[in-house]
Amino acid sequence: MSREALTFPPSSRSFLEPHLPPNNDNGSSKPNLPFTTLTFATSLDSSLALAPGTRTTLSGPQSKAMTHYLRSRHDAILIGVGTAVADNPGLNCRIEGVGGYGGEGLTGQPRPIVIDPQARWDFTEGSKILELVREGKGRAPFIVTSNDTIPSAAKRALLESYGGKFIPLALFVGQQGERRLDWTAVLECLKIEGLGSVMIEGGGTVINSLLEPGWAHLVDSVIVTIAPTWLGQGGVVVSPRRRVEGGEAVAAARLRDVRWYPFGEDVVLCGKV
Amino acid sequence: MSREALTFPPSSRSFLEPHLPPNNDNGSSKPNLPFTTLTFATSLDSSLALAPGTRTTLSGPQSKAMTHYLRSRHDAILIGVGTAVADNPGLNCRIEGVGGYGGEGLTGQPRPIVIDPQARWDFTEGSKILELVREGKGRAPFIVTSNDTIPSAAKRALLESYGGKFIPLALFVGQQGERRLDWTAVLECLKIEGLGSVMIEGGGTVINSLLEPGWAHLVDSVIVTIAPTWLGQGGVVVSPRRRVEGGEAVAAARLRDVRWYPFGEDVVLCGKV
Repeated sequence: MSREALTFPPSSRSFLEPHLPPNNDNGSSKPNLPFTTLTFATSLDSSLALAPGTRTTLSGPQSKAMTHYLRSRHDAILIGVGTAVADNPGLNCRIEGVGGYGGEGLTGQPRPIVIDPQARWDFTEGSKILELVREGKGRAPFIVTSNDTIPSAAKRALLESYGGKFIPLALFVGQQGERRLDWTAVLECLKIEGLGSVMIEGGGTVINSLLEPGWAHLVDSVIVTIAPTWLGQGGVVVSPRRRVEGGEAVAAARLRDVRWYPFGEDVVLCGKV
Repeated sequence: MSREALTFPPSSRSFLEPHLPPNNDNGSSKPNLPFTTLTFATSLDSSLALAPGTRTTLSGPQSKAMTHYLRSRHDAILIGVGTAVADNPGLNCRIEGVGGYGGEGLTGQPRPIVIDPQARWDFTEGSKILELVREGKGRAPFIVTSNDTIPSAAKRALLESYGGKFIPLALFVGQQGERRLDWTAVLECLKIEGLGSVMIEGGGTVINSLLEPGWAHLVDSVIVTIAPTWLGQGGVVVSPRRRVEGGEAVAAARLRDVRWYPFGEDVVLCGKV
């Protein structure tokens, strides 16, 4: 994959502006929480990838530049451990003008956050994310683990030598005996870390849980890119758990303040949950 | 449901025009086949309905008027028996100016086609589709059955008294022992019946099979309305069977000549398979 700087023209930026964190921090109505954007790209059949653990290129080059522009507008970008393991992602921002791509220091580079309850992500010196840190093109990740997980001393030392860290948290809430990720705790913790805005990128488990009624109120903005492709049955699908009201199935989630922007072959959907 | 005439403004018609059957018959490149349009409305998670056998209103009033306009532009509209049983559909066209809605006779009213291999659709005098025929607002259906199915004499008599008929066809082709609907046979038969254009509306089984590589070449135009809602897991999903090439999963179908049209809260996607 190319590591060159990407450009995203001002004409395209304007349609995203109403859906992004305000440039001043004063507008936040939730002082304990960061501005949270949920963003991902799917096929027409709502698949993120052809199969679990695989990376599927769905959208065109314009959409890629958009993703990197969105990253430049957030203090942090968040993924689940499944995506970290599957994709060996860089999780930096390559928009021209940010730190490492023409800009000073690490200006505009978001902090990568990986939700990894059991600390199973086996990153090494060779992982792309740490490579980019060495090259001055990105920040080291904060890895959020369950507070009953103790990462190995070697992993911790490696991570900390790059400026990253493990953050142990009481990650789960019981709900009818289930263990579910407590998104409020995660996001409050990020705000305490000084991260005023978070862009949540995936994967399927993370996205589906955030679209459920219990957590959807945490999401300030949704930006979905849809590619004109059907990946077919067996993909990693974005589809939240069914909701039932009064014994009847109802739609799991509906967006409001909806705007659609045709964007090359794809369409970009912006709204609020 | 209201039976009043619907209007669909000329300004909205123009974007659909390139995706519709040509007004003259001379342009057809496939003399044995009708111009075939595949059209349906889904949620963001590619669901047609919350559950099999239920009808879910996904899209707004504008999209409904669009569907009826599209019907006015086709000689026939086709559904599978599952949809006929679940929805008790009218399968007529309510655009202002067609027969029964201000126009003469049955001008502009499409012929309903129901694919019903085992003749299990239990229509009666009270079925909406026959009610509309009595009111001069629609045509009686042609019901395509497997040629080893013999409908009851009473059903046949009822259907024929309204101007409809059963059409027995060699409906299935063997493919590794499977019985699969032979869409070429179905569409060729409709062309022989004088139907130069067919709008295929659903349900899930019909749509998914037509998006598979074996049949997709029969489809001239795809028009999908997407509503900004996630219905959630367990819905009736449009997602064709997985394709495998050289041992690797690949996208099941991709659209080309793609156009997206924001349309109220929804988006309309037009393209070719």
